[in-house]
Formats: sequence, C-alpha cells, structure tokens
Amino acid sequence: MHKKTDKRIVRTQELIFNSLQYFMEKGVAYSETSIQDISDNAGIARQTFYRNYLSKDEVILLKLDEVMDCFMSNIVDCKILHASDLAAILIKYWSNEVKMFELLEWAGLEKKLIDRLSTFNKQIIEKNEKSVDNIEYVANYFAGAIYMFLKTFITNKKRNNLEEIINLFCKLTNNCSALLNIG
Amino acid sequence: MHKKTDKRIVRTQELIFNSLQYFMEKGVAYSETSIQDISDNAGIARQTFYRNYLSKDEVILLKLDEVMDCFMSNIVDCKILHASDLAAILIKYWSNEVKMFELLEWAGLEKKLIDRLSTFNKQIIEKNEKSVDNIEYVANYFAGAIYMFLKTFITNKKRNNLEEIINLFCKLTNNCSALLNIG
Repeated sequence: MHKKTDKRIVRTQELIFNSLQYFMEKGVAYSETSIQDISDNAGIARQTFYRNYLSKDEVILLKLDEVMDCFMSNIVDCKILHASDLAAILIKYWSNEVKMFELLEWAGLEKKLIDRLSTFNKQIIEKNEKSVDNIEYVANYFAGAIYMFLKTFITNKKRNNLEEIINLFCKLTNNCSALLNIG
Repeated sequence: MHKKTDKRIVRTQELIFNSLQYFMEKGVAYSETSIQDISDNAGIARQTFYRNYLSKDEVILLKLDEVMDCFMSNIVDCKILHASDLAAILIKYWSNEVKMFELLEWAGLEKKLIDRLSTFNKQIIEKNEKSVDNIEYVANYFAGAIYMFLKTFITNKKRNNLEEIINLFCKLTNNCSALLNIG
C-alpha cells in the first residue's frame, strides 16, 4: 500500500474514504458495496483503488489506525493520568469520531476497535509501570467495557451531562485502578 | 418460521445448524457460504431451509437465544447471587459453548451476543431490585466487559486456574456492585 507521501495520494485516499462513507449513508449494505461502485463514485479507476488499498476493510482500518494514533497522542501528553482524565479524553475525543463508529458497525468491524482499545490498555498499564497479572484479561475486559460505554454515549439521542457520565465511568471502572497506579 | 413442535422439524433444524458449522470448520468464509451449499450439505431442499429460517444469520441467532435462555435459567435458580457465583456460572456455562462463540465470530455477529448480555444485565439488575441510574450505560458497560472476559478465557490456550479467574472477575467488576445488591 502507498505511504501517504504526496498530496495527490492523500487526496485520492480521501476520495475513496468519502465514497465508501457515501454508500453507508445511502443505506447500501456493506456486502453489496463493490470496489467498482466505490471507485466509480470517487471518480477514479478501479486499479487506482487497488494501488491504495487491498480491500474495503483496509480503507476503514487504516483510517481507524490514524484515529487511534491521534487519540493515543492525547493520552501521552498527560503526565499523570487520573481515571476522570481518561474518561474525559475518551468521551470528548470519540464524540468527534461518530462516523468512525458508524463505519465500523456498518462493515461489521467493531471487534477491530475493541482490539485496538485492548492494545491501548496494555500501553496504559505499561506507561504506569503497573505490574498486572493476567494482563490479557485486564486489557480485554476494559476494552469491551470502554467500547460499549462509548457506544452508548455516542448513540444516545439525549446526551447526558458530561460530568455525570465521567463520574459514572470512574465508578464502574473503580477509578481504573486495574490500569492506573492512581485513582 | 416453524416452531419446534415436532421431532422432524427439530431434526431438520439440527441438520441445518450442523451443516453451517461444517463450512466454518472447513475454513470457508461466511459470506461465501450460500443457503444452497448449506442445504445441499444438510441433504435437504433449499425450500426446506426457507421454511425453517429466513437467513443464515437466523440459524445462528435462534440457537443463541436457546443458549441464552438456558444460561438465564441457571441464574434464576440462585436465590442470592454473589459476584463469585455469577462469575463461576458465566465461565462454566460458556466454556461448554465454545462453538457458539466461534460461530458468532465467523459470521461477524459478536455484537448480538453483547446485546443479549446487556439484556441479561438489565434482568439481573431488576431481579436484585437495584435502583440504577443510567441503566443503559451500566448494562452495556458490563456486557462488553463480560463478553471480552469470556472470550479471553475461552480462546486462551493454556487455561488458567478457575478460582484465580473468578477472583480476577470479582476484582475487575468490583464484586458486580453496580449489578447486584450484595458483593
């Protein structure tokens, strides 16, 4: 796959991503959306699609990696991370990534976000120099929990008070005491 | 769809379920497994499939409902439910349903199990007459958490000591204090 080295490639990949999104918004099933449809709608040749991506899934998953990298950089900036900081960053950041949530659900790729969140949890545990037994269980448990918590927030029509939701997150995660050294 | 009223129908539905499972075990992609393939392999006519099920998904999801009902009946029998009981029942029950986990993953239907677990959590909360604010968040949070915890246990090649895993579950869920009245 192309590295995003020049502007033309960035532009082409944007066209492809937006084209895929268009079919979701039109209500077409993911399985019914062909690479040919995506290419036609993006105004590019089918071969151009394949010079950029191996598959439809890859269009979404490479974007997810970008989003996750950007999300991680928000966390790394925090010298000391409290559960309430983590909750606030998680909720504020992902509230702006509703489209990514919808795309993953449309494509049946939700588990990829849960996997990325599990990796993220492992990084948090390591960053906090916390010695954790059964790290796989802990990272996966919180990945599933965080994913569903975020999904509930994002798909909730009437948005709750942010402070209330952060407090609830801290309570449910027991102040993330299994991930962080401090509450 | 047929109700399972007579033995012949039960037998046909078993043949269909086993046939679907056969394609998973053979390594065929779910999307590449047609109703025709499933019917041929089950030794039934395509119309017979459609007299029993609307789709491939329904074959798996109706079985999931059966498994969940049976699981719930294990919980309802407990007069007082402690977090450790819940953990033990969850782990022991689902250890015998590895195939269902695999089928859901193969078909990209994991979120259906998470949804069922969320409904289960709401029932637990109601059964315990617990007054819970934001019940949707609490039920979904634990549904994602429990799903990933079970998945880690089930897919773990080297099985941990059961007691250790139950203790870890109690610790991570804070003794399920958000679901149960007692720890």
